[in-house]
Amino acid sequence: MSNDHPIKFVAIGLAHNHVYDMARRLMAAGAELVACWDDDPANLAAFAAAYPHAETTRFMDDLLADPAIDLVVSAAIHDERGALGVRAMQQGKDFLCTKPGFTTLEQLEAVRRAGATTGCRYTVYFGERVGNPATVLAGELVRGGAIGHVVHTAGFGPHRLFGRVERPAWVFQHARYGGILNDLASHQIDQFLYFTGSPSAEIVAATVANHHHRQFVEFEDFGEVLLRGEGATGFIRVDWLSPAGLDTWGDVRLFLLGTEGYMEVRKTWDVQGRAGTDHLFVVDGQGERHIQATGTPLPFMADYLADLRQRTETAITQAHVLQVSELALRAQAQAHILPASR
Amino acid sequence: MSNDHPIKFVAIGLAHNHVYDMARRLMAAGAELVACWDDDPANLAAFAAAYPHAETTRFMDDLLADPAIDLVVSAAIHDERGALGVRAMQQGKDFLCTKPGFTTLEQLEAVRRAGATTGCRYTVYFGERVGNPATVLAGELVRGGAIGHVVHTAGFGPHRLFGRVERPAWVFQHARYGGILNDLASHQIDQFLYFTGSPSAEIVAATVANHHHRQFVEFEDFGEVLLRGEGATGFIRVDWLSPAGLDTWGDVRLFLLGTEGYMEVRKTWDVQGRAGTDHLFVVDGQGERHIQATGTPLPFMADYLADLRQRTETAITQAHVLQVSELALRAQAQAHILPASR
Repeated sequence: MSNDHPIKFVAIGLAHNHVYDMARRLMAAGAELVACWDDDPANLAAFAAAYPHAETTRFMDDLLADPAIDLVVSAAIHDERGALGVRAMQQGKDFLCTKPGFTTLEQLEAVRRAGATTGCRYTVYFGERVGNPATVLAGELVRGGAIGHVVHTAGFGPHRLFGRVERPAWVFQHARYGGILNDLASHQIDQFLYFTGSPSAEIVAATVANHHHRQFVEFEDFGEVLLRGEGATGFIRVDWLSPAGLDTWGDVRLFLLGTEGYMEVRKTWDVQGRAGTDHLFVVDGQGERHIQATGTPLPFMADYLADLRQRTETAITQAHVLQVSELALRAQAQAHILPASR
Repeated sequence: MSNDHPIKFVAIGLAHNHVYDMARRLMAAGAELVACWDDDPANLAAFAAAYPHAETTRFMDDLLADPAIDLVVSAAIHDERGALGVRAMQQGKDFLCTKPGFTTLEQLEAVRRAGATTGCRYTVYFGERVGNPATVLAGELVRGGAIGHVVHTAGFGPHRLFGRVERPAWVFQHARYGGILNDLASHQIDQFLYFTGSPSAEIVAATVANHHHRQFVEFEDFGEVLLRGEGATGFIRVDWLSPAGLDTWGDVRLFLLGTEGYMEVRKTWDVQGRAGTDHLFVVDGQGERHIQATGTPLPFMADYLADLRQRTETAITQAHVLQVSELALRAQAQAHILPASR
């Protein structure tokens, strides 16, 4: 495929609003949104209203069969992504979805097989890293040796359950959302592997709990994972416990401990501190710095589109995507379920 | 003992400068420093210079045998504290030391037996909680229900190894300092049990490593523990990796996740933020607050002295001290030693 061929994509599976963010970033990087589809007319109408130039009249099968389409982008319900991706790949298309990529290891294995036979890509967009300016800048600084070797990461991924966002029923159905670690913690697993340079990791321990939402019997509002790689360990905590008084949806943090310094990323918020998002704090042998990183370029989507054209792996590797997803699935499967004590 | 009887104490074992802090706080709460002793003349001279009214001419055995002495306060080298405490208790004296209280479970069991037979107390001063105004205030707010039930704690205890403080040889001798988890993490174990209201906890996982100080073959510069109590879990990370550019000895943090809100304590520093120490951030259903908590009263030493007179357990219970110490020892003993990869 030539370097100036614009990637044409369709958005299929519009259950989560992350699809808007992915579509917007793909178009900003030069891709062309051709059409959209969702079984749910409300989801379809909302997306079509946001992107009126996208076709809405062709059914999914027709779109998947269209040889002019290069890429399928999806935020289908979690348990539907794997099968949709396999179908897309079998039609010669690459596939990009929001996290989580899977809810079962069987889905992941089916995608692995589809990739081997078709050569197509199944990519999960780990937006808390590649879509977050402060985290991207932290990555550049770490690669430049700013804090030596990263020997530990700690990632907090708190979320607000209710508030400005309505939550559909599947969010509370375990088989559909796949558990809190599989869902939310895949971001932090991605960041552990990326920042420590670990190709893989051992899941030392994992915990899930429903501390405060007993009315949803299949829901988990808390999860944690301890990871161990080669020469580095990582702690992850995710939850749905962000209080209503917080002025954003979640106070997402990343702490990187290096042999020569440390960093803290306040991705979404600097509680009772500086305004705005994307705060990076760097402490090294010379001193302390605060960097307001909002303007940091985000090369992911442009690199990804180039990868699709040239079959390179600059933006992210297929192995990394599947490794992160497998670790998230395994953490979820082996998690200790903390009994409610109160 | 009457309520107005001033507790008379001696300071024996002056190897760590925490003894100055304990002595100062005890005197501020009404105790009388009678004498001090250390085998090392330099330690003794330095302490005597700080507190010129303390006798320096009596040897340890004489001080321990003196019936006018109520309390022995110590920052002896870690592996000497237990035996010194037992000797003090056998002479009818209570014993207060800085952390860690022990380096082996055998020492702890000897103290448990001494307590049972003498009725004397062996107390470890967990200054990162009871001596830290923001943490004391966090405790008061938590007890008042400010963030609901605390379901998770995360404690970071980074330390600078070199800089303004010289480190004697025993700091790098494993049998003497007892390992990084036993030493530093006892603070965070104390805080987990306290803030979650857990009488005990399971050590789910523990890790130690020497990431950056290979010249000290018995040293550990990194440790982490995952704790599980009833209805709550806790993560602890301690290290000796604070970079020279940090404008304090360590950026000590405590994160409390509750069912109705969360708190962050920036105990020593607000990196590139507000001046000073003791910053408490509270986010609940109503909003966000920053509290500069430096002025929060610290009742520990006054409560402790009253406990010694009245044989109550208001400041801290003997069971808690021994439970924290045992968990720290067990975490250290079962820690996975992360191999150095680089």
